[in-house]
Amino acid sequence: MKIVRDMGKAAALKPLREVERWDDSADVVVVGLGAAGCCAAIEAAEAGADVLALERMSGGGGTSALSTGQLYIGGGTPIQKACGFEDSPEEMFKYLMATCGPGEDEAKIRMYCDHSVGHFHWLVEHGVPFKESYYGDGSYTPTDDCLSFSGSEQSWPYREIAVPAPRGHTVQQDGIEAGAQLMRSLVAAVGRTSTRVWEDSLVQTLVADADGRIVGCAVRRDGGEQLVEARRGVVLCAGGFINNRDMVHHYAPELARCRYRAASDGDDGRGIRMGMGAGGAAKRMETGCIVLPYTVPKSLMNGIMVDRRGMRFINEDLYQTTVGEAALLHQGGHVFLICDNECFARPFAPAEVAAVEETIADLEKALDMPEGVLQSTVEVYNRHAERGEDPIFHKGRQYLQPLVSPPFAAIDYRVENSLYTVFTMGGLHTLPTAQVVNADGDVISGLYAAGRTTSGLAAQGYSSGLSLADATFFGRMAGRHATGRAVPPDR
Amino acid sequence: MKIVRDMGKAAALKPLREVERWDDSADVVVVGLGAAGCCAAIEAAEAGADVLALERMSGGGGTSALSTGQLYIGGGTPIQKACGFEDSPEEMFKYLMATCGPGEDEAKIRMYCDHSVGHFHWLVEHGVPFKESYYGDGSYTPTDDCLSFSGSEQSWPYREIAVPAPRGHTVQQDGIEAGAQLMRSLVAAVGRTSTRVWEDSLVQTLVADADGRIVGCAVRRDGGEQLVEARRGVVLCAGGFINNRDMVHHYAPELARCRYRAASDGDDGRGIRMGMGAGGAAKRMETGCIVLPYTVPKSLMNGIMVDRRGMRFINEDLYQTTVGEAALLHQGGHVFLICDNECFARPFAPAEVAAVEETIADLEKALDMPEGVLQSTVEVYNRHAERGEDPIFHKGRQYLQPLVSPPFAAIDYRVENSLYTVFTMGGLHTLPTAQVVNADGDVISGLYAAGRTTSGLAAQGYSSGLSLADATFFGRMAGRHATGRAVPPDR
Repeated sequence: MKIVRDMGKAAALKPLREVERWDDSADVVVVGLGAAGCCAAIEAAEAGADVLALERMSGGGGTSALSTGQLYIGGGTPIQKACGFEDSPEEMFKYLMATCGPGEDEAKIRMYCDHSVGHFHWLVEHGVPFKESYYGDGSYTPTDDCLSFSGSEQSWPYREIAVPAPRGHTVQQDGIEAGAQLMRSLVAAVGRTSTRVWEDSLVQTLVADADGRIVGCAVRRDGGEQLVEARRGVVLCAGGFINNRDMVHHYAPELARCRYRAASDGDDGRGIRMGMGAGGAAKRMETGCIVLPYTVPKSLMNGIMVDRRGMRFINEDLYQTTVGEAALLHQGGHVFLICDNECFARPFAPAEVAAVEETIADLEKALDMPEGVLQSTVEVYNRHAERGEDPIFHKGRQYLQPLVSPPFAAIDYRVENSLYTVFTMGGLHTLPTAQVVNADGDVISGLYAAGRTTSGLAAQGYSSGLSLADATFFGRMAGRHATGRAVPPDR
Repeated sequence: MKIVRDMGKAAALKPLREVERWDDSADVVVVGLGAAGCCAAIEAAEAGADVLALERMSGGGGTSALSTGQLYIGGGTPIQKACGFEDSPEEMFKYLMATCGPGEDEAKIRMYCDHSVGHFHWLVEHGVPFKESYYGDGSYTPTDDCLSFSGSEQSWPYREIAVPAPRGHTVQQDGIEAGAQLMRSLVAAVGRTSTRVWEDSLVQTLVADADGRIVGCAVRRDGGEQLVEARRGVVLCAGGFINNRDMVHHYAPELARCRYRAASDGDDGRGIRMGMGAGGAAKRMETGCIVLPYTVPKSLMNGIMVDRRGMRFINEDLYQTTVGEAALLHQGGHVFLICDNECFARPFAPAEVAAVEETIADLEKALDMPEGVLQSTVEVYNRHAERGEDPIFHKGRQYLQPLVSPPFAAIDYRVENSLYTVFTMGGLHTLPTAQVVNADGDVISGLYAAGRTTSGLAAQGYSSGLSLADATFFGRMAGRHATGRAVPPDR
């Protein structure tokens, strides 16, 4: 019985005494050249360090390059200001503490909120383009616009906890794949430093000295093994583990049901496994970002999301990952969006209509729901919606319209039939300095990690853009700390 | 920022080269003398090994001694047969695979079901007393009786998946604390072997050789440090981590809300932290056994469990841990049991009545529920219950009576006001041989673990008795494997 069959071994450390000589050597070795790895390399190289970045693919980018290119940044950025939105580190902090809890990493959230504006400037200085424009709501922008509400800021209860502000900053790029532009910019920025990049180079395991300090790694390259010394640290930026079926079974089995994995092939958990093998603690390994893409067009939010029995279970205007988490983890992935003829529209993301009927009673029957449940759900919902109220789940007034115009449709958001999209959120436990800690909370000397190789700002309660925020900001902190620069940065 | 402040360090390995000489030496070193540790010691000693058992308290017992002394055993035990119940390893397997999934550990479940009857005989041979009698349903027996339905075997959907059989085997002892008798018996059985027991001896960390093999441990004893060699293996049987507040925050934050922790002080996660420090993988760390003790007297199951809004969310005749999981993890720990005058009774476990009203409408108001929800919940429930049906959640027919006799009461099962009881279920990833594996699934040489230091038969979907089953059976397997005996045992 093995966890990992085809994914290669990574956890067993190579003892330093088995290293006869190093094939190469650098101050800082960065494992993986996605968003986290690029930012780590840039900061370390700008500190004057000799940096070697190792990328298993034939070019940098990683999963970040496949993303929508949205970063969660706030606290009063120039773009927020230019578009007329007030924000402060404190409101951002209140929002994240409320959505990311319980088990939230307060120290990381605090540091990131306090330095988010500075981080925006750093990205711009390093060539990441943002347009000074506001798009609206959404986890991506189909245009080249920048700012959007990318979480549940405007939804109950968060709108009462923190002043809502749009914090999704999408990199300027036509279409929804701005992640490619982000990575073109960051890889180019790495290229402007002295960083040496080895492509097609798969890190196989870490090398530890007799005290457990990480001093290098073994790399498969050109068909052979190269041993690389890391004088000041190894930074693991190797992504998550959603593409490692065995790891998902052992750590996050519910996530296996999602049909679409938002990840590159490299997300096989190697970085996490290497860190665990070095005694690093992996935490919140069960958590994932679970997207249920039902919110475009927005008129669909006038419908009601119901479980297999016909009961509502959530406020439909919460961010789609929050609804996705509830649908998959609490409702067994067996949910429908009920619409009347007024609010129905073809969903932007592929989805089928499970049934269309002239009455709610017939719809209930067509969906195999127990008699009377959906009928009373709709009846009670409508009664309140007529008064512009939703005392049950507090959906925003703009989405409250009684469902009274036949025919009535059920859009099929059962996990088997729909496009639940997922990536893992659990990973190595790191300090805000990006240092990996063991199960006592003590630093593992010479070892850093950032991005989805770690448990980051959010373990649950995701808002779009938090992963790229994690990757870019804490990747930077790794590069800074490993080279003796201030963490957090001076503003 | 440290995970563990007052709980002592355990994760950092001591390198063998720092050991100048061993203070003592044994073939097998057992860490912790609860149920798992006793069984490991007995099996190893009976194989002729020199066994040293290290217990931090002044006597063996651990959390097992505080338990209800119920073991989940089946497949056709002499007591099942004597009491007229048919069972087979296959039916037991089907039940556990259905309740423990997803992420179930099929290899462990398979081996345990196949060897459960043999395990029963082993316990009896080692002096654990069981009375040949059937008690009924329940997670404990207040009498000295043995057999009971201790899970959800009779509830939908499990009754349709596997032929129900009672598998809770409670050790013979008047009162509900039969765990003390279990541990008196097992500690006495250890005493009949050559096992050496050191009490008041806290294992502080593991000793590893240069290849990462575990070869001993450091022990705090008599005010000093003793270094103990383990020639064939160290077996970690040191309990779970519910009494380590920082670990709970990092790994299982939802569990922190439960008021009562079913655990001895020793459940501070030391064993898990030691294993993680050695590169062992910890898995399903988020999971816990969450008991919501609302099922005694059973007439209460005629009531309906509703969430903060007044909606039902579960089949009320499922085992109370399944209901507890759903209440805490899916409903935010904000639930009420709604009874009419007919089914109301004072709950056996302490619980307050949140409100009593003459009508459901008034009860709804008194509980601050949105207008109309509880009313339609009860109305739809009653309509079906009148026909002896529950198409919504499939509660057993014997608990279906319309709630029509005023006054109506809500028993307060909000987590802040009620006695949610919890212990952790996550821990080291072990093979059925009790060998600890790393994140690749490869064995860490010289390291074993059993009981709540591991992720065992069940990570979720708990049935009462599974933890003592885990502890005793896989503790045995550790002792056997470390001494070269067959695993699984010949029947």
